[in-house]
Amino acid sequence: MTQTLYLEDFTVGHIHKTDASETLSADDIKSFAAQYDPQPFHLDETAAARSFFGGLAASGWHTAALTMRLLVKTLPISGGIIGAGFEEFRWPRPTRPGDRLRVEVEVLELKFSQSKPQQGFLKHRVTTFNQDNQPVLVMTGNLLVPRRLAGG
Amino acid sequence: MTQTLYLEDFTVGHIHKTDASETLSADDIKSFAAQYDPQPFHLDETAAARSFFGGLAASGWHTAALTMRLLVKTLPISGGIIGAGFEEFRWPRPTRPGDRLRVEVEVLELKFSQSKPQQGFLKHRVTTFNQDNQPVLVMTGNLLVPRRLAGG
Repeated sequence: MTQTLYLEDFTVGHIHKTDASETLSADDIKSFAAQYDPQPFHLDETAAARSFFGGLAASGWHTAALTMRLLVKTLPISGGIIGAGFEEFRWPRPTRPGDRLRVEVEVLELKFSQSKPQQGFLKHRVTTFNQDNQPVLVMTGNLLVPRRLAGG
Repeated sequence: MTQTLYLEDFTVGHIHKTDASETLSADDIKSFAAQYDPQPFHLDETAAARSFFGGLAASGWHTAALTMRLLVKTLPISGGIIGAGFEEFRWPRPTRPGDRLRVEVEVLELKFSQSKPQQGFLKHRVTTFNQDNQPVLVMTGNLLVPRRLAGG
Protein backbone atom coordinates (compact mmCIF):
# COMPACT_ATOMS: atom_id res chain seq x y z
CA MET A 1 0.00 0.00 0.00
CA THR A 2 1.26 3.47 -0.87
CA GLN A 3 0.87 6.63 1.16
CA THR A 4 -2.49 8.28 1.76
CA LEU A 5 -3.72 10.29 -1.22
CA TYR A 6 -5.20 13.80 -1.24
CA LEU A 7 -6.83 15.53 -4.19
CA GLU A 8 -3.57 17.26 -5.15
CA ASP A 9 -1.84 13.89 -5.46
CA PHE A 10 -3.91 12.84 -8.48
CA THR A 11 -2.88 13.57 -12.08
CA VAL A 12 -5.35 13.78 -14.95
CA GLY A 13 -4.77 10.90 -17.34
CA HIS A 14 -3.01 8.68 -14.82
CA ILE A 15 -4.38 5.14 -14.49
CA HIS A 16 -4.27 3.68 -11.00
CA LYS A 17 -3.98 -0.08 -10.78
CA THR A 18 -2.57 -2.75 -8.49
CA ASP A 19 -1.88 -6.47 -8.62
CA ALA A 20 -5.02 -7.10 -6.56
CA SER A 21 -7.60 -9.44 -8.08
CA GLU A 22 -10.76 -11.23 -7.03
CA THR A 23 -11.83 -14.62 -8.38
CA LEU A 24 -15.45 -15.83 -8.19
CA SER A 25 -16.56 -19.45 -8.14
CA ALA A 26 -19.98 -20.75 -9.17
CA ASP A 27 -20.74 -21.21 -5.46
CA ASP A 28 -19.79 -17.57 -4.76
CA ILE A 29 -22.11 -16.43 -7.55
CA LYS A 30 -25.03 -18.50 -6.24
CA SER A 31 -24.45 -17.48 -2.65
CA PHE A 32 -24.45 -13.74 -3.41
CA ALA A 33 -27.49 -14.14 -5.66
CA ALA A 34 -29.45 -16.11 -3.06
CA GLN A 35 -29.02 -13.21 -0.66
CA TYR A 36 -29.40 -10.19 -2.95
CA ASP A 37 -30.45 -11.09 -6.50
CA PRO A 38 -32.43 -14.35 -6.46
CA GLN A 39 -33.04 -14.87 -10.16
CA PRO A 40 -32.68 -18.24 -11.94
CA PHE A 41 -29.77 -17.17 -14.19
CA HIS A 42 -27.68 -16.33 -11.11
CA LEU A 43 -28.70 -19.43 -9.12
CA ASP A 44 -28.89 -22.47 -11.35
CA GLU A 45 -26.76 -23.63 -14.29
CA THR A 46 -29.63 -25.33 -16.13
CA ALA A 47 -31.99 -22.38 -15.86
CA ALA A 48 -29.12 -20.04 -16.78
CA ALA A 49 -28.33 -22.04 -19.93
CA ARG A 50 -31.88 -21.36 -21.17
CA SER A 51 -31.77 -17.64 -20.25
CA PHE A 52 -30.54 -14.49 -21.95
CA PHE A 53 -27.12 -15.14 -20.40
CA GLY A 54 -26.74 -18.63 -21.90
CA GLY A 55 -25.01 -19.88 -18.75
CA LEU A 56 -24.47 -19.03 -15.10
CA ALA A 57 -23.72 -15.31 -14.68
CA ALA A 58 -22.90 -13.32 -11.56
CA SER A 59 -25.32 -10.67 -10.37
CA GLY A 60 -24.14 -7.31 -11.68
CA TRP A 61 -24.19 -6.17 -8.05
CA HIS A 62 -21.79 -8.94 -7.15
CA THR A 63 -19.41 -7.63 -9.81
CA ALA A 64 -19.88 -4.13 -8.38
CA ALA A 65 -19.27 -5.31 -4.80
CA LEU A 66 -16.04 -7.09 -5.78
CA THR A 67 -15.02 -3.98 -7.71
CA MET A 68 -15.43 -1.97 -4.51
CA ARG A 69 -13.24 -4.46 -2.67
CA LEU A 70 -10.57 -3.94 -5.33
CA LEU A 71 -10.97 -0.15 -5.23
CA VAL A 72 -10.23 -0.10 -1.50
CA LYS A 73 -6.87 -1.73 -2.32
CA THR A 74 -6.22 0.52 -5.33
CA LEU A 75 -7.08 4.03 -4.08
CA PRO A 76 -5.72 4.76 -0.58
CA ILE A 77 -7.52 8.11 -0.34
CA SER A 78 -7.32 10.07 2.91
CA GLY A 79 -10.63 9.62 4.68
CA GLY A 80 -11.62 6.66 2.50
CA ILE A 81 -13.43 6.15 -0.77
CA ILE A 82 -16.61 8.23 -0.67
CA GLY A 83 -18.61 8.03 -3.88
CA ALA A 84 -20.94 10.84 -4.88
CA GLY A 85 -22.48 8.88 -7.75
CA PHE A 86 -22.00 7.99 -11.40
CA GLU A 87 -23.05 9.45 -14.73
CA GLU A 88 -22.10 6.28 -16.60
CA PHE A 89 -22.67 2.82 -15.19
CA ARG A 90 -22.79 -0.25 -17.41
CA TRP A 91 -21.99 -3.92 -17.51
CA PRO A 92 -20.57 -4.61 -21.01
CA ARG A 93 -20.64 -8.39 -20.42
CA PRO A 94 -21.47 -10.79 -17.61
CA THR A 95 -19.04 -12.08 -15.01
CA ARG A 96 -18.78 -15.89 -15.18
CA PRO A 97 -17.73 -18.65 -12.77
CA GLY A 98 -13.96 -18.73 -12.46
CA ASP A 99 -13.46 -15.18 -13.71
CA ARG A 100 -10.56 -13.27 -12.14
CA LEU A 101 -11.36 -9.56 -11.85
CA ARG A 102 -9.04 -6.56 -11.59
CA VAL A 103 -9.67 -2.82 -11.77
CA GLU A 104 -8.16 0.22 -13.43
CA VAL A 105 -9.07 3.74 -12.35
CA GLU A 106 -8.41 6.56 -14.81
CA VAL A 107 -8.25 10.11 -13.46
CA LEU A 108 -10.44 12.34 -15.64
CA GLU A 109 -10.66 15.65 -13.79
CA LEU A 110 -9.79 17.30 -10.46
CA LYS A 111 -12.55 19.60 -9.25
CA PHE A 112 -11.41 22.07 -6.61
CA SER A 113 -14.00 24.02 -4.66
CA GLN A 114 -13.78 27.72 -3.81
CA SER A 115 -16.47 27.50 -1.15
CA LYS A 116 -15.10 24.32 0.47
CA PRO A 117 -11.30 24.61 0.28
CA GLN A 118 -10.82 21.52 2.44
CA GLN A 119 -12.22 19.13 -0.18
CA GLY A 120 -13.03 18.64 -3.84
CA PHE A 121 -14.17 15.99 -6.31
CA LEU A 122 -12.18 13.50 -8.33
CA LYS A 123 -13.87 12.64 -11.59
CA HIS A 124 -12.74 9.17 -12.58
CA ARG A 125 -13.57 6.12 -14.64
CA VAL A 126 -13.43 2.69 -13.04
CA THR A 127 -13.13 -0.27 -15.42
CA THR A 128 -13.29 -3.79 -14.08
CA PHE A 129 -11.67 -6.35 -16.37
CA ASN A 130 -11.83 -10.13 -16.44
CA GLN A 131 -8.80 -12.38 -16.97
CA ASP A 132 -9.14 -11.94 -20.75
CA ASN A 133 -8.88 -8.15 -20.37
CA GLN A 134 -12.52 -7.69 -21.33
CA PRO A 135 -14.43 -5.01 -19.40
CA VAL A 136 -17.27 -6.32 -17.23
CA LEU A 137 -18.14 -3.05 -15.46
CA VAL A 138 -17.52 0.59 -16.40
CA MET A 139 -18.40 3.40 -13.99
CA THR A 140 -17.69 7.10 -14.51
CA GLY A 141 -18.36 9.35 -11.56
CA ASN A 142 -17.05 11.51 -8.77
CA LEU A 143 -15.37 10.80 -5.46
CA LEU A 144 -15.27 13.26 -2.58
CA VAL A 145 -11.56 13.73 -1.79
CA PRO A 146 -9.90 15.89 0.91
CA ARG A 147 -7.38 18.58 0.01
CA ARG A 148 -3.88 18.47 1.46
CA LEU A 149 -4.14 21.51 3.72
CA ALA A 150 -1.31 23.15 5.60
CA GLY A 151 -0.30 20.72 8.30
CA GLY A 152 -2.41 18.01 6.63
CA MET B 1 -46.90 -11.47 -7.05
CA THR B 2 -48.71 -10.41 -10.19
CA GLN B 3 -48.50 -11.95 -13.65
CA THR B 4 -45.35 -11.89 -15.72
CA LEU B 5 -44.72 -8.55 -17.41
CA TYR B 6 -43.72 -7.89 -21.03
CA LEU B 7 -42.68 -4.55 -22.49
CA GLU B 8 -46.23 -3.82 -23.69
CA ASP B 9 -47.52 -4.16 -20.13
CA PHE B 10 -45.69 -1.06 -18.90
CA THR B 11 -47.21 2.43 -18.99
CA VAL B 12 -45.14 5.60 -19.06
CA GLY B 13 -45.62 7.51 -15.83
CA HIS B 14 -46.76 4.52 -13.80
CA ILE B 15 -44.92 3.92 -10.54
CA HIS B 16 -44.44 0.28 -9.59
CA LYS B 17 -44.22 -0.46 -5.88
CA THR B 18 -44.99 -3.23 -3.43
CA ASP B 19 -45.19 -3.67 0.33
CA ALA B 20 -41.79 -5.38 0.30
CA SER B 21 -39.12 -3.84 2.51
CA GLU B 22 -35.66 -4.69 3.77
CA THR B 23 -34.31 -3.66 7.17
CA LEU B 24 -30.57 -3.53 7.93
CA SER B 25 -28.98 -3.90 11.36
CA ALA B 26 -25.57 -2.59 12.41
CA ASP B 27 -24.34 -6.20 12.24
CA ASP B 28 -25.66 -6.56 8.67
CA ILE B 29 -23.84 -3.36 7.68
CA LYS B 30 -20.54 -4.53 9.21
CA SER B 31 -20.84 -8.01 7.76
CA PHE B 32 -21.42 -6.79 4.18
CA ALA B 33 -18.62 -4.23 4.55
CA ALA B 34 -16.13 -6.78 5.89
CA GLN B 35 -16.67 -8.83 2.74
CA TYR B 36 -16.93 -6.14 0.06
CA ASP B 37 -16.20 -2.62 1.33
CA PRO B 38 -13.84 -2.82 4.29
CA GLN B 39 -13.59 0.83 5.28
CA PRO B 40 -13.71 2.11 8.88
CA PHE B 41 -16.96 4.09 8.50
CA HIS B 42 -18.78 0.88 7.47
CA LEU B 43 -17.15 -1.34 10.11
CA ASP B 44 -16.81 0.49 13.40
CA GLU B 45 -19.09 2.96 15.20
CA THR B 46 -16.25 4.93 16.81
CA ALA B 47 -14.28 5.35 13.60
CA ALA B 48 -17.51 6.17 11.76
CA ALA B 49 -18.40 8.90 14.25
CA ARG B 50 -15.14 10.67 13.38
CA SER B 51 -15.62 10.23 9.60
CA PHE B 52 -17.44 12.15 6.88
CA PHE B 53 -20.54 10.09 7.68
CA GLY B 54 -20.65 11.08 11.38
CA GLY B 55 -21.80 7.59 12.36
CA LEU B 56 -22.03 4.04 11.05
CA ALA B 57 -23.22 4.00 7.42
CA ALA B 58 -23.91 1.09 5.11
CA SER B 59 -21.75 0.56 2.04
CA GLY B 60 -23.51 2.12 -0.92
CA TRP B 61 -23.19 -1.29 -2.58
CA HIS B 62 -25.08 -2.85 0.31
CA THR B 63 -27.90 -0.36 -0.35
CA ALA B 64 -27.74 -1.26 -4.05
CA ALA B 65 -27.78 -5.02 -3.34
CA LEU B 66 -30.84 -4.71 -1.07
CA THR B 67 -32.47 -2.54 -3.74
CA MET B 68 -31.97 -5.39 -6.22
CA ARG B 69 -33.59 -7.79 -3.78
CA LEU B 70 -36.59 -5.46 -3.61
CA LEU B 71 -36.68 -5.01 -7.40
CA VAL B 72 -37.00 -8.76 -7.91
CA LYS B 73 -40.18 -8.60 -5.81
CA THR B 74 -41.44 -5.44 -7.51
CA LEU B 75 -40.92 -6.12 -11.24
CA PRO B 76 -41.96 -9.64 -12.30
CA ILE B 77 -40.59 -9.21 -15.83
CA SER B 78 -40.68 -12.17 -18.18
CA GLY B 79 -37.15 -13.53 -18.39
CA GLY B 80 -36.04 -11.66 -15.28
CA ILE B 81 -34.57 -8.26 -14.51
CA ILE B 82 -31.69 -7.68 -16.92
CA GLY B 83 -30.08 -4.28 -16.49
CA ALA B 84 -28.26 -2.64 -19.37
CA GLY B 85 -26.81 0.14 -17.25
CA PHE B 86 -27.58 3.54 -15.76
CA GLU B 87 -27.11 7.13 -16.85
CA GLU B 88 -27.86 8.44 -13.36
CA PHE B 89 -26.69 6.69 -10.21
CA ARG B 90 -26.43 8.49 -6.90
CA TRP B 91 -26.74 8.02 -3.20
CA PRO B 92 -28.44 11.19 -1.86
CA ARG B 93 -27.83 10.14 1.76
CA PRO B 94 -26.36 7.18 3.64
CA THR B 95 -28.30 4.13 4.82
CA ARG B 96 -28.07 3.79 8.60
CA PRO B 97 -28.46 0.92 11.09
CA GLY B 98 -32.14 0.10 11.56
CA ASP B 99 -33.25 1.71 8.29
CA ARG B 100 -36.17 0.05 6.53
CA LEU B 101 -35.82 0.35 2.76
CA ARG B 102 -38.46 0.17 0.04
CA VAL B 103 -38.36 0.91 -3.70
CA GLU B 104 -40.43 2.72 -6.27
CA VAL B 105 -39.86 2.24 -10.01
CA GLU B 106 -41.16 4.93 -12.33
CA VAL B 107 -41.63 4.04 -15.99
CA LEU B 108 -40.01 6.76 -18.12
CA GLU B 109 -40.02 5.39 -21.67
CA LEU B 110 -40.71 2.23 -23.66
CA LYS B 111 -38.14 1.68 -26.41
CA PHE B 112 -39.30 -0.74 -29.09
CA SER B 113 -36.76 -2.06 -31.57
CA GLN B 114 -37.36 -2.46 -35.30
CA SER B 115 -34.38 -4.74 -35.76
CA LYS B 116 -35.14 -6.92 -32.72
CA PRO B 117 -38.93 -7.20 -32.55
CA GLN B 118 -38.76 -9.78 -29.78
CA GLN B 119 -37.38 -7.33 -27.20
CA GLY B 120 -36.94 -3.70 -26.30
CA PHE B 121 -35.76 -1.46 -23.49
CA LEU B 122 -37.63 -0.05 -20.51
CA LYS B 123 -36.21 3.27 -19.38
CA HIS B 124 -37.00 3.64 -15.72
CA ARG B 125 -36.00 5.37 -12.52
CA VAL B 126 -35.54 3.35 -9.36
CA THR B 127 -35.71 5.27 -6.09
CA THR B 128 -34.92 3.53 -2.82
CA PHE B 129 -36.46 5.25 0.20
CA ASN B 130 -35.78 4.86 3.91
CA GLN B 131 -38.55 4.68 6.53
CA ASP B 132 -38.71 8.50 6.64
CA ASN B 133 -39.42 8.58 2.88
CA GLN B 134 -36.00 10.06 2.15
CA PRO B 135 -34.25 8.76 -0.98
CA VAL B 136 -31.05 6.83 -0.32
CA LEU B 137 -30.41 5.63 -3.89
CA VAL B 138 -31.60 6.94 -7.27
CA MET B 139 -30.82 5.02 -10.48
CA THR B 140 -32.06 5.92 -13.96
CA GLY B 141 -31.37 3.39 -16.67
CA ASN B 142 -32.61 0.75 -19.05
CA LEU B 143 -33.81 -2.81 -18.63
CA LEU B 144 -33.89 -5.34 -21.45
CA VAL B 145 -37.52 -6.53 -21.59
CA PRO B 146 -39.12 -9.13 -23.93
CA ARG B 147 -42.06 -8.24 -26.15
CA ARG B 148 -45.31 -10.12 -25.83
CA LEU B 149 -45.20 -11.93 -29.17
CA ALA B 150 -48.00 -13.95 -30.69
CA GLY B 151 -48.29 -17.07 -28.57
CA GLY B 152 -46.03 -15.54 -25.89
